Amino acid sequence: MSKTIELAQHLEKLHINNMYKSDFYWTWDKTDEELDAIFTVADALRDLRERNKSTRIFDSGLGISIFRDNSTRTRFSFASACNLLGLAVQDLDEKKSQIAHGETVRETANMVSFMADVIGIRDDMFIGEGHKYQKTFMDAVKEGYRDGILEQQPTLVNLQCDVDHPTQCMADMLHIIHQFGGVENLKGKKIAMTWAYSPSYGKPLSVPQGVIGLMTRFGMDVVLAHPEGYDVMPEVEEIARKNAQATGGSYRKVATMEEAFDGADIVYPKSWAPFAAMEERTKLYQAGDQAGIDALEQRLLAQNAQHKDWTCSEEMMKRTRDGKALYLHCLPADITGLSCPEGEVDNSVFDRYLVPLYKEASYKPYVIAAMIMMSKVKDPAAALMALDGGDKRKFF
Amino acid sequence: MSKTIELAQHLEKLHINNMYKSDFYWTWDKTDEELDAIFTVADALRDLRERNKSTRIFDSGLGISIFRDNSTRTRFSFASACNLLGLAVQDLDEKKSQIAHGETVRETANMVSFMADVIGIRDDMFIGEGHKYQKTFMDAVKEGYRDGILEQQPTLVNLQCDVDHPTQCMADMLHIIHQFGGVENLKGKKIAMTWAYSPSYGKPLSVPQGVIGLMTRFGMDVVLAHPEGYDVMPEVEEIARKNAQATGGSYRKVATMEEAFDGADIVYPKSWAPFAAMEERTKLYQAGDQAGIDALEQRLLAQNAQHKDWTCSEEMMKRTRDGKALYLHCLPADITGLSCPEGEVDNSVFDRYLVPLYKEASYKPYVIAAMIMMSKVKDPAAALMALDGGDKRKFF
Amino acid sequence: MSKTIELAQHLEKLHINNMYKSDFYWTWDKTDEELDAIFTVADALRDLRERNKSTRIFDSGLGISIFRDNSTRTRFSFASACNLLGLAVQDLDEKKSQIAHGETVRETANMVSFMADVIGIRDDMFIGEGHKYQKTFMDAVKEGYRDGILEQQPTLVNLQCDVDHPTQCMADMLHIIHQFGGVENLKGKKIAMTWAYSPSYGKPLSVPQGVIGLMTRFGMDVVLAHPEGYDVMPEVEEIARKNAQATGGSYRKVATMEEAFDGADIVYPKSWAPFAAMEERTKLYQAGDQAGIDALEQRLLAQNAQHKDWTCSEEMMKRTRDGKALYLHCLPADITGLSCPEGEVDNSVFDRYLVPLYKEASYKPYVIAAMIMMSKVKDPAAALMALDGGDKRKFF
Repeated sequence: MSKTIELAQHLEKLHINNMYKSDFYWTWDKTDEELDAIFTVADALRDLRERNKSTRIFDSGLGISIFRDNSTRTRFSFASACNLLGLAVQDLDEKKSQIAHGETVRETANMVSFMADVIGIRDDMFIGEGHKYQKTFMDAVKEGYRDGILEQQPTLVNLQCDVDHPTQCMADMLHIIHQFGGVENLKGKKIAMTWAYSPSYGKPLSVPQGVIGLMTRFGMDVVLAHPEGYDVMPEVEEIARKNAQATGGSYRKVATMEEAFDGADIVYPKSWAPFAAMEERTKLYQAGDQAGIDALEQRLLAQNAQHKDWTCSEEMMKRTRDGKALYLHCLPADITGLSCPEGEVDNSVFDRYLVPLYKEASYKPYVIAAMIMMSKVKDPAAALMALDGGDKRKFF
Repeated sequence: MSKTIELAQHLEKLHINNMYKSDFYWTWDKTDEELDAIFTVADALRDLRERNKSTRIFDSGLGISIFRDNSTRTRFSFASACNLLGLAVQDLDEKKSQIAHGETVRETANMVSFMADVIGIRDDMFIGEGHKYQKTFMDAVKEGYRDGILEQQPTLVNLQCDVDHPTQCMADMLHIIHQFGGVENLKGKKIAMTWAYSPSYGKPLSVPQGVIGLMTRFGMDVVLAHPEGYDVMPEVEEIARKNAQATGGSYRKVATMEEAFDGADIVYPKSWAPFAAMEERTKLYQAGDQAGIDALEQRLLAQNAQHKDWTCSEEMMKRTRDGKALYLHCLPADITGLSCPEGEVDNSVFDRYLVPLYKEASYKPYVIAAMIMMSKVKDPAAALMALDGGDKRKFF
Repeated sequence: MSKTIELAQHLEKLHINNMYKSDFYWTWDKTDEELDAIFTVADALRDLRERNKSTRIFDSGLGISIFRDNSTRTRFSFASACNLLGLAVQDLDEKKSQIAHGETVRETANMVSFMADVIGIRDDMFIGEGHKYQKTFMDAVKEGYRDGILEQQPTLVNLQCDVDHPTQCMADMLHIIHQFGGVENLKGKKIAMTWAYSPSYGKPLSVPQGVIGLMTRFGMDVVLAHPEGYDVMPEVEEIARKNAQATGGSYRKVATMEEAFDGADIVYPKSWAPFAAMEERTKLYQAGDQAGIDALEQRLLAQNAQHKDWTCSEEMMKRTRDGKALYLHCLPADITGLSCPEGEVDNSVFDRYLVPLYKEASYKPYVIAAMIMMSKVKDPAAALMALDGGDKRKFF
């Protein structure tokens, strides 16, 4: 029996009826079994591709991508996922850094969705705006379907908003699961999500938020650490706490990188912007106050620079379990002595983890494809079995 | 019997032999039965998509898009139409606002068409240039095919030129047909194509021209209204007059928006530039006279501003039949109090017609797909029947 | 028996086992039989397309294109070739004129290749850099496959580097073969690869290098001519010399365009930059010395201008065999009196050869498709026979 058949049989046992025709905003909207289904389908698609089996579930169709922020790897991940399933990608190239208004979004949403099957949106620049944009967009699409404007209802894959980065964190998690040999081995494992110094400013909070919102669901000991002033959204922390309680794991905050790294099995040191500053930035953009934006940037860079000791150095790594914690990063990292004089991680540490880092990233297209498949196919287990059994090769 | 089969049977009765391998420049190049065929195929493709039937007629193939002007909705409509039929889109990104010369166009046409199946061109900026570009391009492609450079002869879909905007006006018309319950109900209906004030300048004339050139073929009472100096091309008016005579409808010009709206069943208030000014602008561009272009822009904006009373207000709408005429617009509209202080239409009017407006737009991808299908498939009725009868699903 | 079957039978006799899963950097990496296989498959794909036979060998899949230089025709050729075989194209839009570093390239290579089947790279701007970039990129991809990051190993098509331009020169060669009625008719034919004046500067050396590195393999009399200081890379000249010895042809350099053209059967007059200047330019870019770059540009333009007599005039053409040598160019050409006051070729000469020039270019998509097919399909002869025998049409 092939791995895909095994995975399809597992999928059959899960309660996943709510996923058909549903949007994917945040991991905490989904049940544990629904997340399990995403991981299962991602692994199955990977197995099919390894064996040169066709994974086309669409004969034709469009994935619309909207990147309100520069992106290379998420763009390629989305394009790869769409192609894997038989969808072509059409990119909507909106002017960057623009805060869109409801009516415009509603019109755009309908105009680009006439034949869309799935919509991927990345909008992470403005606290309080990214998710709102995605929601406004998808509400308009739903209305369009209800009103007979659209013949099919496209579904959303959140490619990063101001709150969560589900395709990244699910890829991170699938990587962890495989590195540790299964979900069952994660109970009690310590994962340190920590801030790290970067010479750039204004990085989104969606990765640390997504990590504490997701990793707390697997019985792990999740620790968040950051300098004063770099808090994440309190509502996501609340979700992390509840998750931990429900799974017998824990969620806590510590004040230093050292404490977070001590005995950790997994570390995720990464820079992000202070929450309050990001809120201020949104207001400055809304007011069109460029001088204010520039002043804020200078202030934030100076604030960052006070915490250059928050870096994933060789010394810091030695504090982790046997000095060999699994190092994670969503890439690209600011690498000390390689891409910048002082950054998030020592070159020697980063270099040692290159292969696992690239593997971590390699799960993202499969996670996106699994999200699309779960939202578009009524019986995904049957679909996987048909793909496995079919004699259609990916290439001759 | 499915709707598609009914439509295919209707298609079988039409005389459409001249459409195979033909280009689509202007609606008035086509017979009434040929336009009927486009509408019929558009409806059939929409019906197939609603029922999750594959509409791929191409196993592989390329649609080349050339936008010599910014465009989001036409770009997405073309991409959607191509995808619906199984074509990938390759976009030729030429520098904007450039008036191309014959030899360069001839070379480009061959270089991008080696494997093209269909070519969509939008070039509406310069009076006397847009159509010329399309014609030069397609003549080169035909020569290329004749000379053995190209193995297949690609066909043209005019995505808007300086004379006509056939994909827009055919979508508008299909919308009207469905709103009024069939072509047979349009005899004697009054449609008002009127100029409206906009704070921007230089909008193309192809929509009003396309509308009077097409809508006069259905026995309707077509009225054109605009302030002095905003005439459209006289040769298109001549076509409108002849069309009206042939179908028992009428075509006339009136001097005020009020007169046009009085008792109208359909209104299409929209801004466009004065014809003479557009001719002057072409010459300034050809001469590279930027100062002249800037001065002309100021003069045109001032001229527009004298006619702010040409706006689709609630009061104006009350003059239409029962105050409930069907409001049309090609979008995006300049909406008073929403996108600009004073514009083409009151926010409350626009808002009341949102759903029909989006439906109007939703026909465009199907109209484009129908144009492609009619020009590439020798027996489109048989193709539709095969698609309807086949067990190929659009997605699993 | 169809032409495709004949070609497939010829292909079966060739020794081509080393092509499966291999990259295509330079023509001189490949054996004569391997190049023969590319030409054979290119002709077969063209024959299949002429007869409306599906040429899809991929059910889904991605071709990644990386243009570190502007390009319209190579971009369209690659996109066309991918589409012909069933691949979608995803373009990596890197900032132009940037000299990338090893680590960044390695990361990018993995990040964009998760689902890539083939990678096309054009990087021809910097002597000593273009090939290095391609090699670093593909080494990273190979490592990624070995380490389990990638499930499939994508292969390279060199779309132009600083050393060779194999897709161009193979297309040129296939054009020559067909114009002369077969490879067997090329023995002893004289081909003149000569420098020609252009008012622009810094054109890559890869075309003349590719031409002398490839055309010397067919028993032809290959002559290179250029003004003093415009030498090509000595290692490529060495390859040309060895090729000529092995095939009974000749390779020699002459000092004037006149001598090169005298009695030539084929002429390829084209501008390129002086080798030494290109090396200097690379160093200036590496040092970020913009003033130096500007000064070099002025010096090079002045140097070029001393050789305006190197032009393919009507007088020059009269020197060729019967005054009717086959005129080649990779396009776009600098045409005297059309695109510039003084350039590479007289307008009347260029115009007389338009059809053969476009035909020459038309082979490129087929050559690229053949390169992809040879590297991805284990038994390409069987694949061609299956495509020929199948009842799958390209379109309905």
